[in-house]
Amino acid sequence: MSLSAPRGTADILPKDAKKWQYVEQQIKSICDNYNYQEIRTPLFEHTEVFQRGVGDSTDIVQKEMYTFEDRGGRSLTLRPEGTAAVSRAFVEHKLFGEPNQPVKLYYFAQMFRYERPQKGRMRQLNQFGVEVLGSASPSVDAEVIDLAMTVYRKLGLSSIKLVINSLGDKESRTNHRNALVEHFSPHKHELCADCQTRLSQNPLRVLDCKKDRDHPAMKTAPSILDYLNEESKEYFEQVKTNLTAMGIQYVVDPNLVRGLDYYNHTAFEIMSDAEGFGAITTLAGGGRYNGLIEELGGPNTPGIGFGMGLERLLMALEAEKVEIPLDDALDCYVVAVGNKAELEAVKVVHQLRNEGIQADKDYQNRKMKGQFKAADRLQAKYVLILGESELERQVINVKSMGTGEQTEVSLGNIVEAMKGYLQGGKGE
Amino acid sequence: MSLSAPRGTADILPKDAKKWQYVEQQIKSICDNYNYQEIRTPLFEHTEVFQRGVGDSTDIVQKEMYTFEDRGGRSLTLRPEGTAAVSRAFVEHKLFGEPNQPVKLYYFAQMFRYERPQKGRMRQLNQFGVEVLGSASPSVDAEVIDLAMTVYRKLGLSSIKLVINSLGDKESRTNHRNALVEHFSPHKHELCADCQTRLSQNPLRVLDCKKDRDHPAMKTAPSILDYLNEESKEYFEQVKTNLTAMGIQYVVDPNLVRGLDYYNHTAFEIMSDAEGFGAITTLAGGGRYNGLIEELGGPNTPGIGFGMGLERLLMALEAEKVEIPLDDALDCYVVAVGNKAELEAVKVVHQLRNEGIQADKDYQNRKMKGQFKAADRLQAKYVLILGESELERQVINVKSMGTGEQTEVSLGNIVEAMKGYLQGGKGE
Repeated sequence: MSLSAPRGTADILPKDAKKWQYVEQQIKSICDNYNYQEIRTPLFEHTEVFQRGVGDSTDIVQKEMYTFEDRGGRSLTLRPEGTAAVSRAFVEHKLFGEPNQPVKLYYFAQMFRYERPQKGRMRQLNQFGVEVLGSASPSVDAEVIDLAMTVYRKLGLSSIKLVINSLGDKESRTNHRNALVEHFSPHKHELCADCQTRLSQNPLRVLDCKKDRDHPAMKTAPSILDYLNEESKEYFEQVKTNLTAMGIQYVVDPNLVRGLDYYNHTAFEIMSDAEGFGAITTLAGGGRYNGLIEELGGPNTPGIGFGMGLERLLMALEAEKVEIPLDDALDCYVVAVGNKAELEAVKVVHQLRNEGIQADKDYQNRKMKGQFKAADRLQAKYVLILGESELERQVINVKSMGTGEQTEVSLGNIVEAMKGYLQGGKGE
Repeated sequence: MSLSAPRGTADILPKDAKKWQYVEQQIKSICDNYNYQEIRTPLFEHTEVFQRGVGDSTDIVQKEMYTFEDRGGRSLTLRPEGTAAVSRAFVEHKLFGEPNQPVKLYYFAQMFRYERPQKGRMRQLNQFGVEVLGSASPSVDAEVIDLAMTVYRKLGLSSIKLVINSLGDKESRTNHRNALVEHFSPHKHELCADCQTRLSQNPLRVLDCKKDRDHPAMKTAPSILDYLNEESKEYFEQVKTNLTAMGIQYVVDPNLVRGLDYYNHTAFEIMSDAEGFGAITTLAGGGRYNGLIEELGGPNTPGIGFGMGLERLLMALEAEKVEIPLDDALDCYVVAVGNKAELEAVKVVHQLRNEGIQADKDYQNRKMKGQFKAADRLQAKYVLILGESELERQVINVKSMGTGEQTEVSLGNIVEAMKGYLQGGKGE
């Protein structure tokens, strides 16, 4: 009998967990500098939250959700993306009434999508994302994009491409939508089954279709940029001006359409250009979704955000051969010989740890030689040796593994001594 | 229309997220000092993992699991506890073959139990836990308990009680089991329905029953401690000796029985004594589970671990009025007046953040006065003022909110100047 993790999910083992911790810590620190605050929502929501907040016509809602009934007969769905859940929380807790507006939020969260698993596409995936709710300023759009780009830059990625587009306001979208329907209708039956449905439900998403991308009608499709009204044009110009002020390069792609039904104005994706990264090159995507909060029962509130796949971020770091700085060394390993010394080792290790010094010992009844080998494997900076003779004299022998130097330290003074050797320990 | 988080789940909003971050950071740092490494497993597992790894006869498996079929017809279950999932990963990835033994793991994970929600009992709850696999040394049992106690002590809790027990090895358990069956059988029909089943499936758990706790037969039930064989007695003595060596106080309670079917030898719980904490006082519980890894298809491997509820930990901190140190102040807020100055503010804020300095600005088209108010609400340490006259002279006016002092700094030098004011910034 052998059990494995469910298809499309993965364990993060200790050697990789350190990389995750590093990446998350860097991102948290960037969010702190940008004055964004963390929010955590439950792993599942009432299914209706995603039906309304992602959109009934999206692939996510139609095909990819993990939906189930709980023992009380409620329809629950494992979170497939972050915006709808955060928006639900924003409405439920009336964050629109907070004195500090806009509300700038970030999250680290697992997402669940029942898709065919492949490289860079998991059924359980980890995302970092931000949502800014309560401001309709184009400088927020630019800031959100800047934050995402800063994450990649700070972590050391250089082959990164930013693509932006504007979907315009409601009026612009409606005009464009009508033009799309008119343009594609004569070709309706040449398009894939999904696109035939999209044409009536959400024609913008026909532009996003992977199956029909080579259809001749795609090339001549009306561009949203030709349908933006003055206000939407001006908005988009300001976003671009803000990006340029920050030295952020971008490409405008009028075919960039994001899956969420509620997007308007700015939409963007960040891609990896790195060689050997694989077929799925989108690292992050987001956009503005004025109107979503109202859809979820809140007051009319503008919003913008993005989601960033962390598995893909780690893949990109690997593709670009960025070295993640990991400290694998252990401060102290205590070697003890004999029952009494072992018990004393328990005390010493406890005291060291208590003062913020990393310490470990043997638990396998290893002989002295085996304990030294274990210390080596753990890359101990110092080995503290406690034999019967040391115990009798109430001392411990401290060996620096870097220099080979040995010093006897009195047992009562070992914590202070090690703090000194380790330059004040590692703090609390 | 208004949607809320599912019953028994809760959002963690920004003001609380900071507390969670602090607590998690402290715990991570303790784990680092104890040389434990992080592992992350998926949110759900094949249902069989919990049926085998928690035990078919437990309340968790029988009544409390969120089990559902995915679109491929697999029976999946949201993780109700940590040990079975970590053990599954240990077996799947053959961590028993790692050179460093034992494998000392920790996790932060959401757990899901379909129970009646009440204070301190959620359907989605957060746990910190550790699992040590591969050592049968009683000093590991003591270390694991020490780690849990250290978390509470370091975070500032003082009303904490440690209760331990030994369930003995297989032989001792069998003898005790037989004695229990003999003792309770004459009273079988006076016990609750659950206990009648337990009596044949797992009679030890009759001792744990909340309904039958006052039945006279409980008081006279045979104690496991009277049935420990020599080896089990010696093992328990050594655990206690190790605890005492570290100065850890404990109470032995022979009725302490943990829910998991596979526990043996050491079992422990940590309770809060704090006034006003509420009825559910158990903060953490754990024990040794030699045999579980084999049950999940791995080689015979000893193991021990615990799970610690983080919601309850935060409740205990509140009950004991422990103040969590939170840094709510913002480094810089840039006040800008006029379109040109606003664009310059975007640049300045971007540059400051880029160098690890926390910075923010207005996004609501507020007038100067409103911007100053926002800076106040965000507890800005410095307000950087950029009006038309400053922009003309390419300077920015830096006001310390602590002293009220104002200084003009050249725009090209603002990052260096702020680093100086903030004593080198916040580092990268």
